[in-house]
Amino acid sequence: MSELTARAEKLDAADDLAAVRSRFALDDVTYLDGNSLGALPAHVPARLDDVIRREWGELRIRSWTESGWWTAPERIGDRIAPLVGAAPGQIVVGDSTSVNVFKALVAAVRMAGEDRDEILVDATTFPTDGYIAESAARLTGSTLRAVTPAEVPGALGGRTAAVLLNQVDYRTGRLHDLPSLTAAIHASGALAVWDLCHSAGALEVGLDEHGVDLAVGCTYKYLNGGPGSPAFLYVRQDLQPRFDSPLPGWNSHAEPFGMRSAYEPAAGAPRGRVGTPDILSMLALEAALEVWEDVSVPAVRAKSLALTDFFLECVTAYVPPGRVESLTPVRHEERGSQIALRCDDAGEVMRRLIERGVVGDFRHPDVLRFGFTPLYVSFADVERAARVLGDVLMA
Amino acid sequence: MSELTARAEKLDAADDLAAVRSRFALDDVTYLDGNSLGALPAHVPARLDDVIRREWGELRIRSWTESGWWTAPERIGDRIAPLVGAAPGQIVVGDSTSVNVFKALVAAVRMAGEDRDEILVDATTFPTDGYIAESAARLTGSTLRAVTPAEVPGALGGRTAAVLLNQVDYRTGRLHDLPSLTAAIHASGALAVWDLCHSAGALEVGLDEHGVDLAVGCTYKYLNGGPGSPAFLYVRQDLQPRFDSPLPGWNSHAEPFGMRSAYEPAAGAPRGRVGTPDILSMLALEAALEVWEDVSVPAVRAKSLALTDFFLECVTAYVPPGRVESLTPVRHEERGSQIALRCDDAGEVMRRLIERGVVGDFRHPDVLRFGFTPLYVSFADVERAARVLGDVLMA
Repeated sequence: MSELTARAEKLDAADDLAAVRSRFALDDVTYLDGNSLGALPAHVPARLDDVIRREWGELRIRSWTESGWWTAPERIGDRIAPLVGAAPGQIVVGDSTSVNVFKALVAAVRMAGEDRDEILVDATTFPTDGYIAESAARLTGSTLRAVTPAEVPGALGGRTAAVLLNQVDYRTGRLHDLPSLTAAIHASGALAVWDLCHSAGALEVGLDEHGVDLAVGCTYKYLNGGPGSPAFLYVRQDLQPRFDSPLPGWNSHAEPFGMRSAYEPAAGAPRGRVGTPDILSMLALEAALEVWEDVSVPAVRAKSLALTDFFLECVTAYVPPGRVESLTPVRHEERGSQIALRCDDAGEVMRRLIERGVVGDFRHPDVLRFGFTPLYVSFADVERAARVLGDVLMA
Repeated sequence: MSELTARAEKLDAADDLAAVRSRFALDDVTYLDGNSLGALPAHVPARLDDVIRREWGELRIRSWTESGWWTAPERIGDRIAPLVGAAPGQIVVGDSTSVNVFKALVAAVRMAGEDRDEILVDATTFPTDGYIAESAARLTGSTLRAVTPAEVPGALGGRTAAVLLNQVDYRTGRLHDLPSLTAAIHASGALAVWDLCHSAGALEVGLDEHGVDLAVGCTYKYLNGGPGSPAFLYVRQDLQPRFDSPLPGWNSHAEPFGMRSAYEPAAGAPRGRVGTPDILSMLALEAALEVWEDVSVPAVRAKSLALTDFFLECVTAYVPPGRVESLTPVRHEERGSQIALRCDDAGEVMRRLIERGVVGDFRHPDVLRFGFTPLYVSFADVERAARVLGDVLMA
């Protein structure tokens, strides 16, 4: 047994979260792609079967009330809330992340007032945020400026209405400083909109603590909600009365079944709803969130950092020098829950890793991306992934 | 056996679609609420179980390509296409109806050109269409005018950009004249956007034949896709290059995995996509659409009219005179696939009907709504529903 294998064994033995792995349906694949699609929680299939056969098949329309379908968006939002540091009543689940970015950004521009007409967007972020921000700017008569997160403080001014930032960069895994950036944005009088796709469920976000205005996030990565499971929208409690949605569907009406011709928005988080929620995807997500029972986010974050530290150490040990280069910051306060390695023939390398049962993903043009979900990734997985990567790169 | 019971028996015996009922999971409830939530197709639970356990649980991220998840929105769109009279390549599935109304209406206003700045919306339609139209008008700098469908021809003018109409009124079940209204809208130089929520799967829509510009519809009513299953968006082929989406998420990019900072829209129907599709709900819908194998829409429409005719006849026979009044037009060419009965204490009456196993729904303030899904509603169901209604109203 190599020294690193022995270390992995010890780390796993001392891991308080190790038992959580059994809540997932996993096989002998080393799955380091939970930052793209979280693994299946083991109890979800039985729950969905009940939703489909009994709630839909037998109760049919009655389930909107009797099975709690109607209130699912805000109920599941409240279940996500503690994972991102939010008190209840501020998160609603539904629609895709892109649609929620649109709601949040248009609403933020409207809240900022008419003398503020510029949106700043993270130039390094996942592209959809930039595309949607461009549309939000066009439709609200604002201008859009792309800057790096580091440039944000210098770019803020009296015309800045809103700033859209991704807490963790999808490509490099860099964690941006949400507290200080939010404070800088507020100091300029603008609103901070955070995209939590790569941080929710991976680290402590502290939405309430840091006074974030609006936030969105997906639920199919570290929250394991299933492929394309609905996204979430956070609107800080005191801003809710001013949340003026560009998508005021009937589900966001104060009295949805009044079928009134005049729109009157609901109070609270449901104001962020739009149309009929996709119940099957939504209730799969709700069931998936049960794996968080008794799991603390600080414990998840601590394990995440230990996993990524150990991975970098194993990569250094196993991979020929100069063959890969980490794009992910070394400092813990700048690191999310993934490691991105620049590698010349990354597409081909990832193909061969997957053939050998180590699943990460490839991001154009030259990035190997490995995500570490502390709920089910073990230190043994980490050692094995680095060892197989070393083998592939030496072959 | 009463004369009407005998008639029902004969009609069922002669019904070519009678065998389709066995494709659904039904019990002895008389289910006349398929215009709100379609019944469960019997093979859907097993299919979803495979999607969850194998495609998500075992293949995980590989399913985006290997299980065809990525192309599901346009593949399922093509499956819906023949049901609404559309050639392939024009329909994409995803998001809610409300979100699709927003995409269609903003895109229509943009196509209409800058000298046209008025949107007409059906004042009698399902409220969400009006709320979303108001938002689309506000964001595009247009004005919104609510008119009845009958008033549309007189309201059209050189400033009309787009007209949003519901083919079948959700409350009364009135079927509007899509061909002639579309022709009138086109004659004025405006674009016609049709909401097919209460017609798709119930009658021949003829989108291509009548030159409709854009259309949206839900899939959980007559298409039986499951609670909140994703909606669809139709953009006529020749308009697709000019379709300028207000929700240009990364899924609508010409090269989604290029992760480019500049937006370049995809060609064809995928341009109507936004974010990551909700795969569980979407694949439940795809499975549900298999019940249409060998079923023709004209046969569905013929049976639908026979069912509603027979229901009206049975109501006349069983219900005390003057106790209810049909709000649904008598003429076939003005009738969708539901019957709405005005009734003084409709809420209480519907509660008692449901207690006795006849499920329709109540629409505020005084409407009993009964939907007739020809794929699984029998003439015996119809006779029973009217008979129980008569009993309840005489009690």
